[in-house]
Amino acid sequence: MGVDIGGTKILAAVVTPQGEILAREKRATVAEEGPEAVISRLIGAIEAALSLAGTEPARLAAIGIAVAGMALPGEGVVAFSPNLRGWRDVPLRDIVARQLGVSTFLINDASAAALGEHCYGAGRGVNNLVYVTVGTGIGGGVIIDGKLYCGACGVAGEVGHMTIDVDGPRCNCGNFGCLEALASGTAVAREAKRHVAEGAETCLPQLVGGELEMITAETVFQAAQKGDPLALEIIAQAASYLGIGLANLVNLFNPELIIVGGGLAHMGNMLLSPALRVIRERAFEVPAQAVRLVTAQLGGSSGVLGAVAFALQQEAEVRP
Amino acid sequence: MGVDIGGTKILAAVVTPQGEILAREKRATVAEEGPEAVISRLIGAIEAALSLAGTEPARLAAIGIAVAGMALPGEGVVAFSPNLRGWRDVPLRDIVARQLGVSTFLINDASAAALGEHCYGAGRGVNNLVYVTVGTGIGGGVIIDGKLYCGACGVAGEVGHMTIDVDGPRCNCGNFGCLEALASGTAVAREAKRHVAEGAETCLPQLVGGELEMITAETVFQAAQKGDPLALEIIAQAASYLGIGLANLVNLFNPELIIVGGGLAHMGNMLLSPALRVIRERAFEVPAQAVRLVTAQLGGSSGVLGAVAFALQQEAEVRP
Repeated sequence: MGVDIGGTKILAAVVTPQGEILAREKRATVAEEGPEAVISRLIGAIEAALSLAGTEPARLAAIGIAVAGMALPGEGVVAFSPNLRGWRDVPLRDIVARQLGVSTFLINDASAAALGEHCYGAGRGVNNLVYVTVGTGIGGGVIIDGKLYCGACGVAGEVGHMTIDVDGPRCNCGNFGCLEALASGTAVAREAKRHVAEGAETCLPQLVGGELEMITAETVFQAAQKGDPLALEIIAQAASYLGIGLANLVNLFNPELIIVGGGLAHMGNMLLSPALRVIRERAFEVPAQAVRLVTAQLGGSSGVLGAVAFALQQEAEVRP
Repeated sequence: MGVDIGGTKILAAVVTPQGEILAREKRATVAEEGPEAVISRLIGAIEAALSLAGTEPARLAAIGIAVAGMALPGEGVVAFSPNLRGWRDVPLRDIVARQLGVSTFLINDASAAALGEHCYGAGRGVNNLVYVTVGTGIGGGVIIDGKLYCGACGVAGEVGHMTIDVDGPRCNCGNFGCLEALASGTAVAREAKRHVAEGAETCLPQLVGGELEMITAETVFQAAQKGDPLALEIIAQAASYLGIGLANLVNLFNPELIIVGGGLAHMGNMLLSPALRVIRERAFEVPAQAVRLVTAQLGGSSGVLGAVAFALQQEAEVRP
């Protein structure tokens, strides 16, 4: 069983070890309700998915849970989450394991997605890769020698929180000039709103029926596809910052492959081509020439699939 | 046999597998002479060290060579070096192996130092660590699960070439706002000269007998120890940038330990205390609390010792 808890929805899926999804159930997170309510919805989603697949908890090998937040795999605790209100040191692993009687494992959602893409998606057969998810925020995960690199506490791979502009805008994490504050969907929407408020000429207001607060990265992408100059410029700017972040990763990790996932990945070459150009300009020639840059393949399923892969790997280590 | 080729000197040392240096020989690099002359000096240094130890090439298990430049361990080639003029795709490994009849392995000097500190120095027993050398330039190496992380081409760990200030000064690598351009010894000396030229009040000119071009990071450190306000400010600024770079590494690698080596490491807490404060301010709480920050233990021997450790590990993999 793979579960993916995000700021807006919970996805639970019954998955075979080969990565085939047999059944899935989606629930709203309603993050404002706090941990207890969210966990109860999560259990509901798991039970519904099991029922759809015509199976029961006792037939599960393990449950893997991917969380949009700082998950400590060793302790099974969600230390905190920027997207889930009131989550501080929640022992989610043991709560779920106890309620359902199944071995449960906890992992950060971007780390899970990295592992998912490595096991079942764009990174199959590639042993050194970096996965970067560009959506509301920017997260990531690093596969080294075919394994998810977790670090000392299991929280490695926070690629969105590299400072790339020391005097840049404040980030949700409290720091300034993080990659996330400059190249995420939130940053794209923020820049669009700022330019519109300053009176820039653009079709953006029209696309949201004049309700400027409704402008999202997706709106900006739509406008860019229509050739709107402001929208094109904003996306080019975000792509350039993304390229700077990726160039840092190229110099640090010398990966074979960088996979870009998340909501902004479907901008495709409008985002990736300028980013690749910046990598070639800024990173050392040898690793810059060696790296391939591709989009993710698993879409919204990467989290549940990666959570399953993680749970199976951990289960194999615990009970060899 | 460990060899360390830097921009100014070549060090060759006969080393036991336990990391004991039996004999060492130092030669000037005279980098302007080009690869052939440097290689001939290198062979001379190896032969002299062997003679001092009363041994001969046939009794060596292997030769490890650490190079201040982009070494490709797989090909045994120095792709280029910012500090050695005319080095482009020099097949150093095979040249040395053929001349001396000993298995030879090539590695970047900062990667070697990382491995040296892990095997014989400040990182003994620590399986996840990042080593950062802060001297003329800034380099590094990453130990993951007890092994040097090399990446796809063997050039991973270029921690000095993370962009941390997108509009920052030009770096030797051609990029802008790299950590190296802001926190290296070169950056410290550049800032000092700039302030002196602008007429700042400081004892720096006096320390170099009025020859302003002679101001180095070491001069600035001496002035700071005397309480010179400008020198203290320049070092605090470099330490702050270093902290930003280290905070990025903390968020990316979640290491147990960061080891700071290189010429500026002997500034000790004048450099490390502000850097640690910035890590705590900028990185996520969980990995920032988990990491320890220490200075290197092996000094100028880290390169030769790491080169030996690398050669022995590679030799063991080649001939198990």
